Amino acid sequence: MFAIICLFLQVKIIMTMKREFSFLFAIICSLNITAQQVSGSESVTLKLTAPDAHQVSVNWQFQDIAMERDSAGCYSVSINGLEPNFYTYYFTVDGIRALDPANPRTVRDLGNIFNYLIIGNGIADLMRDRHVSHGRTEQIWYPTSDGRERRMSVYTPAGYDKSTADYPVLYLLHGSGGDELAWIELGRAVQILDNLIAENVAKPMIVVFPNGNMYQDASPLCYDISINGKIKWSDRNTRLSGKFETAFGDIINFTESHYRVDKSKSSRAIAGLSMGGYHAMHISHFYNQMFDYVGLFSPAIATMYDPNTTNTPNAKLAFPVNEQTPDVYRNVERDLAKQFGSEPKLYYISIGSDDFLYPENVQYRTFLDKNKYPYLYIETTGGHSWDNWRKYLIDFLPRIFK
Amino acid sequence: MFAIICLFLQVKIIMTMKREFSFLFAIICSLNITAQQVSGSESVTLKLTAPDAHQVSVNWQFQDIAMERDSAGCYSVSINGLEPNFYTYYFTVDGIRALDPANPRTVRDLGNIFNYLIIGNGIADLMRDRHVSHGRTEQIWYPTSDGRERRMSVYTPAGYDKSTADYPVLYLLHGSGGDELAWIELGRAVQILDNLIAENVAKPMIVVFPNGNMYQDASPLCYDISINGKIKWSDRNTRLSGKFETAFGDIINFTESHYRVDKSKSSRAIAGLSMGGYHAMHISHFYNQMFDYVGLFSPAIATMYDPNTTNTPNAKLAFPVNEQTPDVYRNVERDLAKQFGSEPKLYYISIGSDDFLYPENVQYRTFLDKNKYPYLYIETTGGHSWDNWRKYLIDFLPRIFK
Repeated sequence: MFAIICLFLQVKIIMTMKREFSFLFAIICSLNITAQQVSGSESVTLKLTAPDAHQVSVNWQFQDIAMERDSAGCYSVSINGLEPNFYTYYFTVDGIRALDPANPRTVRDLGNIFNYLIIGNGIADLMRDRHVSHGRTEQIWYPTSDGRERRMSVYTPAGYDKSTADYPVLYLLHGSGGDELAWIELGRAVQILDNLIAENVAKPMIVVFPNGNMYQDASPLCYDISINGKIKWSDRNTRLSGKFETAFGDIINFTESHYRVDKSKSSRAIAGLSMGGYHAMHISHFYNQMFDYVGLFSPAIATMYDPNTTNTPNAKLAFPVNEQTPDVYRNVERDLAKQFGSEPKLYYISIGSDDFLYPENVQYRTFLDKNKYPYLYIETTGGHSWDNWRKYLIDFLPRIFK
Repeated sequence: MFAIICLFLQVKIIMTMKREFSFLFAIICSLNITAQQVSGSESVTLKLTAPDAHQVSVNWQFQDIAMERDSAGCYSVSINGLEPNFYTYYFTVDGIRALDPANPRTVRDLGNIFNYLIIGNGIADLMRDRHVSHGRTEQIWYPTSDGRERRMSVYTPAGYDKSTADYPVLYLLHGSGGDELAWIELGRAVQILDNLIAENVAKPMIVVFPNGNMYQDASPLCYDISINGKIKWSDRNTRLSGKFETAFGDIINFTESHYRVDKSKSSRAIAGLSMGGYHAMHISHFYNQMFDYVGLFSPAIATMYDPNTTNTPNAKLAFPVNEQTPDVYRNVERDLAKQFGSEPKLYYISIGSDDFLYPENVQYRTFLDKNKYPYLYIETTGGHSWDNWRKYLIDFLPRIFK
C-alpha cells in the first residue's frame, strides 16, 4: 500500500475537536477543523487551503455558506450555535463539489458523498463508536419466495454468540431512495444500538435492515440499475405497489430460521422512516397479529387517503379501493381494527413540526383518535431529515421489548 | 429522505458503459463517462462540466492527466489502451481534489476517497457484483488474550448457513496503512470470492480479514486515533514488533470456536500483501504446523535481513537477533526448517517486476532455493499496487484447499 499516498493533497490532514484532545492547536489554515464549545453551544471552524480557487463555499447541512479568503489563499468559515449532533457538509470550489481533505470521514446519501463530523456530547455521544461491547453487523442474502436472492443487513448484539437465549427482533426500514445500508451509514444505527445496549437503556436485540425497493435485489451500488444511464435510486411505482409489504413474510421467515429469535409477538418490532414508516404501518396491519411494537418516524401516509381529502386535517379518512389496489391495501380499516383489537404494546408516531408530511399525519392521528386506537405521539422541531430520524431511533429503542 | 437531494450538483448523474447497455448515448458533456472497447483494448472518456473552473485534470491510477475545456466549460479527456480491470481516479479542480459527480462508486484508501470504474470483461468480471449465489460479509469483534476487543471482517460462502459441513479458512492480511476493511473495499475480495466459488474454480471457504495494526482495535475511521490531530493510519514501531504474529492465536481460536471450521492443517491458509506478506511469512513459521497454504503477495521481507546486506540480491541471508528481538523473530531459520520439514502443500510468492521490494524478494528466494524449500513463484509486470494484489488473489484462490 505504499503506492497509494495521495500526491496531490494540498492540505495537511489535521483535525481536532476540543473534547477529544486536551489541548487546542494554533489556528492556522493547515488546521482545517476546529470544534469548540461555549456553554452548551458548539461551534466549528472549517478551513480549506485553495490558493488557485476563485470561489469557495461550504454546504453545511444542506445550506450553502460563503467562506472568506485570506491573503494566503486559505478559505475559512465559523459556524456557531450548534447543538451536539452528527453533521454533514461538503465544499463547493469554483462550482464543483469537493470533499474536505482534512476529514476522511464520509457518508453516502443516494449517490452523493458528504463529509461528516460528530460534534459535542450528550445525544452525539450515542452516535460515536465508543469502547463498549460491540454487536456484529453483516450483509446477508436471503431467498425470496419468487426465487430471487435479496440483500439485507443484520445486527446481532454483543453477547449473542456466547448466549443460548432467543432474542427479540426489530425490523428497521429505510426511506425512499435508501437501501439496506441507509440506517447503518446515515442513521448511525450500529453505534446507537451498541451504546444504548451497553448502557442498559435498550434491551439486547437483533435488528434487521431490509431493502424496501422491490425492483432492487440490493443497493444500486452493488447491482447497477440504470435507466438511460442514470442510476435508479428509487422507483415510485414499485415502492407503493404493496409488493414489499406482501413479501415481508420472506424476511421474517429467513430471520427466524437463521438467528436465535424469540418468535412471540411481544418480541417483534417494526419501525421505519418516511416510506419506511408507510411500509411499517401497512406491514403491521397486514400481518396484524405479529408485532407488539410499531414505530412510524415521519411516516408517509398520504397514499392511503382519498385524494379529494388530502391535506385537510379534519377530512374523513378514506381508503379508496379499485381493481388495481394491491391486497395489502384492500382492507386497511378492517386490518387496523384487528391490529388494535389485539392491543399492541406500543404504536409510536413521531414527526417534526416543519415536516411536509405533517398535515397527512394529522389526518392519520385523527383517524386513530376517532377509533380510540391508542398511540404514543412525539412531536419535535425540524423537518423530514436524518437529524430527526436518528433522534427518533434513540427515543424509540428504549421503549421496546420491556 | 426527500430532504437529501443535492441542490448544488451542477452535473447530471449519467453513467454508461458499453457492455452493460445495448445502446450508446450521444456524447455530450452531461454524459460523463463513456467506456468503449476496440478489439480487446478498452478506452474511457471522462467529462466534467465546470464552467467556473480554471484548471481541471484527472488523476487516473495515480497519474495526473490534463483535461481539455470546450467553449461551454466542459472538460474532457479520453484514456485509451486500457486492459480490463478495476480503475480508480479523481478530478483536481483549481488545485482541489473532487469526486466525479457522475459516478457514485467510491472507495477509500487510507483517508483518501477515489471514484472507481470496472472496465471490460475477463478478469474485470471477477471484480463485479454479479447475480450469483452470495456469501455473507460481517464485521465482528473478538476478545484478545490481553483483554481487548478488536474488529475483523469475516466472509462465509454461499451455502454456509444451510450446510452442516466444516469449512476451510483463509486468513487474508492487509498491508501497511490498511485495516480490516482494506481487502473488502480496495481488494474486491467479496466479489472475487463469490464469483470464483460460483464458477467452481475456488472451493467454498471462510475468509477472515483481521486488523494487522496492533495499536488499533479497529479501523481509525471507527476509533479515532490521532497524533497531533493527524489520523494514524499506520505505525512502523508496532507493525514490526512481532505482536500481531504472536497474538494471531487469538484470531484462530475465535474463528475456530465461532464458525464451522475444519481444524486440520490442510484446511488452513494464510496470505497477505506487502506488510501482510511479512505477517503471513512470520505467522506461518511461528505457528509452523498450522498452515498448509501460504501466500506472500509483494511481501515486505527486508526487516529479516542484516541491514548491511539489504538490497544486495546475492547477500547472505541473516536474521540478526539482539535483546530487543521479539520471540517470533528469534528463531526464524529454525522455524522455517520445521515449517518446510512438514511439507506445506503450497508456499506461494508473487511480485511485480517493478516492485521496490523486488531485490529483497530475490534474497528471500535465494535463501529458499539454497535450503531446497519448494515454493511457487509468480512474477508479473507492475509494481507495489492493488492492481497486482487483486490479480494475485484471483490466481491464489483456485490453488488452495484442493
